Amino acid sequence: MTASRTVELEGHIIDSGMMQQAFGIVMDMGGNFDVEEFEVGTHKEAESYCRMAVFADSDSDLQEILHELHQIGANLTDPVDAHLEAAPADRVVPTGFYSTTNHPTQVRYRGEWLDVENIEMDCAIVIESGDGEHEAQGASDGSSGDDESPRGDPRAYTKVLNAIREGDLVVTDEAGIRVDPPERPRDSSGPFGFMQGGVSSERPSESLIRQVADAMKRTKEEGGKILVVTGPALIHAGAGDELARLVREGYIDMLSAGNGFAVHDIERGLYGTSLGMDMETLEHPRKGHKHHIYTISEVIRAGGIAEAVDDGLIEEGVMYECVRNDVPYVLAGSIRDDGPLPDTITDSVEAQNAIREQAHEADMVLMLSTLLHSVAVGNCLSSTTRVVCVDINPATVTQLLDRGSSQAIGMVTDIGTFIPTLAGTILGEADEESETVEDAEEVDADDD
Amino acid sequence: MTASRTVELEGHIIDSGMMQQAFGIVMDMGGNFDVEEFEVGTHKEAESYCRMAVFADSDSDLQEILHELHQIGANLTDPVDAHLEAAPADRVVPTGFYSTTNHPTQVRYRGEWLDVENIEMDCAIVIESGDGEHEAQGASDGSSGDDESPRGDPRAYTKVLNAIREGDLVVTDEAGIRVDPPERPRDSSGPFGFMQGGVSSERPSESLIRQVADAMKRTKEEGGKILVVTGPALIHAGAGDELARLVREGYIDMLSAGNGFAVHDIERGLYGTSLGMDMETLEHPRKGHKHHIYTISEVIRAGGIAEAVDDGLIEEGVMYECVRNDVPYVLAGSIRDDGPLPDTITDSVEAQNAIREQAHEADMVLMLSTLLHSVAVGNCLSSTTRVVCVDINPATVTQLLDRGSSQAIGMVTDIGTFIPTLAGTILGEADEESETVEDAEEVDADDD
Amino acid sequence: MTASRTVELEGHIIDSGMMQQAFGIVMDMGGNFDVEEFEVGTHKEAESYCRMAVFADSDSDLQEILHELHQIGANLTDPVDAHLEAAPADRVVPTGFYSTTNHPTQVRYRGEWLDVENIEMDCAIVIESGDGEHEAQGASDGSSGDDESPRGDPRAYTKVLNAIREGDLVVTDEAGIRVDPPERPRDSSGPFGFMQGGVSSERPSESLIRQVADAMKRTKEEGGKILVVTGPALIHAGAGDELARLVREGYIDMLSAGNGFAVHDIERGLYGTSLGMDMETLEHPRKGHKHHIYTISEVIRAGGIAEAVDDGLIEEGVMYECVRNDVPYVLAGSIRDDGPLPDTITDSVEAQNAIREQAHEADMVLMLSTLLHSVAVGNCLSSTTRVVCVDINPATVTQLLDRGSSQAIGMVTDIGTFIPTLAGTILGEADEESETVEDAEEVDADDD
Amino acid sequence: MTASRTVELEGHIIDSGMMQQAFGIVMDMGGNFDVEEFEVGTHKEAESYCRMAVFADSDSDLQEILHELHQIGANLTDPVDAHLEAAPADRVVPTGFYSTTNHPTQVRYRGEWLDVENIEMDCAIVIESGDGEHEAQGASDGSSGDDESPRGDPRAYTKVLNAIREGDLVVTDEAGIRVDPPERPRDSSGPFGFMQGGVSSERPSESLIRQVADAMKRTKEEGGKILVVTGPALIHAGAGDELARLVREGYIDMLSAGNGFAVHDIERGLYGTSLGMDMETLEHPRKGHKHHIYTISEVIRAGGIAEAVDDGLIEEGVMYECVRNDVPYVLAGSIRDDGPLPDTITDSVEAQNAIREQAHEADMVLMLSTLLHSVAVGNCLSSTTRVVCVDINPATVTQLLDRGSSQAIGMVTDIGTFIPTLAGTILGEADEESETVEDAEEVDADDD
Repeated sequence: MTASRTVELEGHIIDSGMMQQAFGIVMDMGGNFDVEEFEVGTHKEAESYCRMAVFADSDSDLQEILHELHQIGANLTDPVDAHLEAAPADRVVPTGFYSTTNHPTQVRYRGEWLDVENIEMDCAIVIESGDGEHEAQGASDGSSGDDESPRGDPRAYTKVLNAIREGDLVVTDEAGIRVDPPERPRDSSGPFGFMQGGVSSERPSESLIRQVADAMKRTKEEGGKILVVTGPALIHAGAGDELARLVREGYIDMLSAGNGFAVHDIERGLYGTSLGMDMETLEHPRKGHKHHIYTISEVIRAGGIAEAVDDGLIEEGVMYECVRNDVPYVLAGSIRDDGPLPDTITDSVEAQNAIREQAHEADMVLMLSTLLHSVAVGNCLSSTTRVVCVDINPATVTQLLDRGSSQAIGMVTDIGTFIPTLAGTILGEADEESETVEDAEEVDADDD
Repeated sequence: MTASRTVELEGHIIDSGMMQQAFGIVMDMGGNFDVEEFEVGTHKEAESYCRMAVFADSDSDLQEILHELHQIGANLTDPVDAHLEAAPADRVVPTGFYSTTNHPTQVRYRGEWLDVENIEMDCAIVIESGDGEHEAQGASDGSSGDDESPRGDPRAYTKVLNAIREGDLVVTDEAGIRVDPPERPRDSSGPFGFMQGGVSSERPSESLIRQVADAMKRTKEEGGKILVVTGPALIHAGAGDELARLVREGYIDMLSAGNGFAVHDIERGLYGTSLGMDMETLEHPRKGHKHHIYTISEVIRAGGIAEAVDDGLIEEGVMYECVRNDVPYVLAGSIRDDGPLPDTITDSVEAQNAIREQAHEADMVLMLSTLLHSVAVGNCLSSTTRVVCVDINPATVTQLLDRGSSQAIGMVTDIGTFIPTLAGTILGEADEESETVEDAEEVDADDD
Repeated sequence: MTASRTVELEGHIIDSGMMQQAFGIVMDMGGNFDVEEFEVGTHKEAESYCRMAVFADSDSDLQEILHELHQIGANLTDPVDAHLEAAPADRVVPTGFYSTTNHPTQVRYRGEWLDVENIEMDCAIVIESGDGEHEAQGASDGSSGDDESPRGDPRAYTKVLNAIREGDLVVTDEAGIRVDPPERPRDSSGPFGFMQGGVSSERPSESLIRQVADAMKRTKEEGGKILVVTGPALIHAGAGDELARLVREGYIDMLSAGNGFAVHDIERGLYGTSLGMDMETLEHPRKGHKHHIYTISEVIRAGGIAEAVDDGLIEEGVMYECVRNDVPYVLAGSIRDDGPLPDTITDSVEAQNAIREQAHEADMVLMLSTLLHSVAVGNCLSSTTRVVCVDINPATVTQLLDRGSSQAIGMVTDIGTFIPTLAGTILGEADEESETVEDAEEVDADDD
Repeated sequence: MTASRTVELEGHIIDSGMMQQAFGIVMDMGGNFDVEEFEVGTHKEAESYCRMAVFADSDSDLQEILHELHQIGANLTDPVDAHLEAAPADRVVPTGFYSTTNHPTQVRYRGEWLDVENIEMDCAIVIESGDGEHEAQGASDGSSGDDESPRGDPRAYTKVLNAIREGDLVVTDEAGIRVDPPERPRDSSGPFGFMQGGVSSERPSESLIRQVADAMKRTKEEGGKILVVTGPALIHAGAGDELARLVREGYIDMLSAGNGFAVHDIERGLYGTSLGMDMETLEHPRKGHKHHIYTISEVIRAGGIAEAVDDGLIEEGVMYECVRNDVPYVLAGSIRDDGPLPDTITDSVEAQNAIREQAHEADMVLMLSTLLHSVAVGNCLSSTTRVVCVDINPATVTQLLDRGSSQAIGMVTDIGTFIPTLAGTILGEADEESETVEDAEEVDADDD
């Protein structure tokens, strides 16, 4: 084996499985290694350190091994600058482009390590030299590098394939890149650590919800932003009022949903029905099925949701509270939409860009009973963002947690009881909900 | 068509679909009919009436048609006595035995209509003449006819195949039987009516839970008995305390579960773990996996659950409250049990008989997160018993509702939030649960 | 009750439940009725007839009742022309607009019954007088009325809300409309009848697949068109080759999918992987995760899928066979797409219009493992179109069948075995698949 | 830290995660360690070695740490004999009993390492000295040590709690025990390695089935035994014929099921129905619901399944082939059984013992669409047994794979297509199945 480089691993490299992975990668790919230094942190907070020489039969083999080692956080002791190649055409990547992970990443450019801005999975890294040669193409085309950079400071940021423009300087190959995957702490049975034993409904629901509530409070105390991603099932399940309460009380900073969510939420406010079912009596009033179309038509007539709130047409619900409390929302269009509402972004690339901005701003994300929107948001998240996935279908939760966040809770539960229990845990019981059946029946008696 | 008999249908025969079914049966089976009288009830409470002559090519064809018409509640205008045949051997039915529905049923014997006692599905009907000739074989063999009958009064009751004894007078063929299927009221969108649109998690959970709470209160007010059927998932999901509270407060009259439920409930009391997971911190303490076996071993050492409660070994939990509040329980054994506990009935036929007794006494049944035990109980229920099925798996709820109760609610929800919400709705929030996160965090702060 | 009109019901009004519904509607809505004539068809093919007077307290109550009766197929004996009102603005319906069912519908205009073209659910009906006054706004804006109509012939067709233009003559209220819901034949246990007992995986899979195969052959023999709606799961599950075979052999006439389906299909052709997993060895080759982005980048470089086929880049797979066999496809964009491919329609309204055209042309639709695209297509289908829904999640199948097609099979099965079994049933075993393990192992032996 | 012992780890201790676990255990439990020797195997087959001194604050703390290290395969360098304590009463374990894993285990007794016979999870280990002092209490009470042992040879074997008899010498504490957990080979993407990415239906079904077929053939070639565990869903799904074919052709050596499976299988043979549905036409013949009870009654009359086969009553199906081909079966009773059949073991402890024997003999286990029976069998399996779990519900597959077999495939698929595809892969297409729809339609034509 003629080719060789030396890499080092630092941190909780044993607990997190990083060392095990590193050794595995080298051997799987036909290489060899020699552990030159190995220090084990022998108490809970202590970090470990491993330096090893990696050998391969050829330079190209070595590059491939080093690439994989990069992905898991093993970095070269003698780094070089990243290779750059100009994109040959709009939306076409150079051969051998570096495809990002969702972990914090640095790129070495002119001898300096640049943090890659807006890191997300499966993107290219574009370098802007800062000397005016290669400029970002602006936020409107899906570029992540949407902040103004003063002339002179080089920057590195992610671009999705769609945003690549001819001539963009794209990082290729494996050299000059440092990845810092979040370590899984050993004390991992808590909800934001590694979920042991797979996704299951057979976990203590109220204890888990208390942990979610704690995380939300902690996020707000730290000045962080909470993004809620949700679908119409939340409204059908009767959780609209309590989600609206969380918005009103300042626990939700952004909302990401689709046309259907907004329509059902507004329909419930206007007619008390959702999909035509009365949310209190559970009856299906005749003509209920028309409410959906009427709702859209009325909002179109008003000119949009905010206008309909201002006009007094919409007087309650999640969208109402978003408008009243300046909580920005993105309503992404889909091919199953009725209408859609004027607020709905019908172009999927444009909608994705709006979602991407939300995702980059979020410090914590609640994914509530929607696979489509949750995947869209999840694709844009860094692995350091706190994520809570709630769905009644275990396969959905499994798929969402698979995205590789290191800060994820998955819950297989009913959104219709989850949201009220969560709101009750954070805010105390709502006044109007505190009556028991006994009270309720007295009230009923009066009606008879 | 030479053979003919006249049948009549009464009640909400249009709304309930009975008339439609009756016409369909005759035509499907190659018969013909002539509607001799037809009166439609033209307001909500009014009943309808239809009398029709049924024709078939032969007597045996006619018998088959009449049998099917019986099943749905169409009865002969000129009834004859039921045919009886002695069972040829233990656990063997005569050819052509009448297999019961789960609807209220009457049998004509010596010119008199006898109510069939303990009606349940797929049984034989046995007649006891009351003149001492054919006696029931006693409750211990699974006979449903376990009450003493004074000499002289003829009785009719169901027997499962296993309880049939040589010489039992078994009803055969179709004649002399009247079935009274519960009518589905037209005002059917409420929870105890027909569930429209299939089983779904996308229904307003809290509204549905309020309806369950109302039904439980109504059942208690009417002096009825509530049977809970449940599995270990309830404990894993953290709902043990709140179910225990419902037992303590008198809302549960009987419990039907398995060995696993009792062991997990007791383990949680003894060690704070369920399946080795700490129910508060969600951590897996080392050695947690031994708790399960230790728990069983200690209860065996005490001699049983009641003895372990008396000894002070068991101090809380669902089983504790059952013992303390004289709530009878059946723990049925299964092939996946550890132990089992001394209270567990390991013979499945014996266990089924114990379950059968519970089912016959129950006026309302809550089936909570167990398919096995729910099917066992459901098999023994009359179609007039109120049933609530709760499971996170829609396929389980669908399967349970399929049993044909006319008084069933199905909910696809999380048992871990369902039970606390239900208990809170009936009883008000528990004192120890009323603290919000803010309170909890103050407490936490003291601990640090 | 002062207001009264007479309606009639014809057909299998008892078996189909239509009569029961009609009586129920009148009573539920506070009306009354008098059955003036009632003839029961007393053999399987015979139709029944019922004429009844309907009474209500006011004209408006009567209108509401008549509206509901229309929906189920009860029509006035003395019809009037439909009411028309001009749409007040683009994408706004007049108050009281008539919202369509998905059943064949006629509208009475100037004394004549017009068939409503391109019937689908939840649309408005627009009348084009034919005298040049009110013209359709063209297909590009989502109008269903996209065929040229010679001056002079009035037409009625559906328009989705989004396609409504100011001044369109929209049908309002209940009068002058006839709906002809498909009758559920009594002999309903077959697969294209009413599915008894709910959706379940516990049905004989191969028998069901044979029925699907029969229906496809029948559809082709009748000159009909088969539309396949599918998602990426089909490729992951390894069914790509066999679906490609069905396309090649002429059993698929149209394809409706998303960007993800096409990318995974092409990736499998280019790299043998799907989501980075090798489809034969089930291993995850390193760098597999890049294949997805590379695939899109290469197709963009070629200019599109057809161009990539022509260039020889794409040499196999479903998309390849579509291009080679002139099977038109719609790839609808979504917010979770990577890329997307140049063929993907990113605007959801535009994509919906393309899907709508496919749906209207289809005589049979296979919905394969995609909820999103299936709902989108299903929304545009008439209730007379044959539909087969296949998914491994029973909740998905239940939701899709709920759309009200009278010609639907639902199967809870694995798409990865369903498609090969279906293709084998229609076409016989593929040559390359006919080897058994014994043959395969001989081949393996040679490799060692 | 005053207490100290030295342990060693050998094998693929890095790839398998063993080393990472070992370090973690010591730190989690408040101990400390010093790596005295560490050699990394630097190619795929090479094993690694680690010797470390473990420190703790007290002897009891140290014992706890060593216990946990044992569980994962870290063994003392200077072993002592295992501690033994006599069981205080029947079915009661001594305090501090050693609870087994399902991994191969050795116990040190009188200076010698004894293999623990019939290893399975959550048992006690009982030592039989061989000098006649403590004898096993015989197989009938659930003892696993059911083979005769010549006087003089000490033995160690597992006993479930229920089989413990007063005076049994039970291993306690942590000393003198060696566990050898199967290593997860690094080349782990194949089906019998570690399943990456969780259980999912989105895997290539036919490739996975080929791997199952290969494993079955390999097992038979090695002289191993294949146990099928299955439930009634297999019959309802129409896979009975093809499972019967696998039995007939010698690919199934044992069957483990319940009363329901056997009844449905026999009902299908007698009446062509399953749960009353005709398996070919999918119709529900009237009276179908009686077939189930008739079937049981007829088998009881015959005296049992084998007798009914001999009498010519049962002429086809899985049970028929089992009888004809001397494939032993266990039918375990359950509380939802009708009947049951005379062959059904109604006592759950007795049934568990019968299942235990099957499990211990099996080299490969197919768990097909039954959670109850699969868990019962899985509880008795060593971690070295090959296991295939097939179910349409991903939660079931996840739960079964969680049992810790290192040789497990999980498939989320339809049993109704899985079994025919598996049988076709192993045996070639059945003659009667080879016709395509075209052939079938010719046949149909003849019937008309």
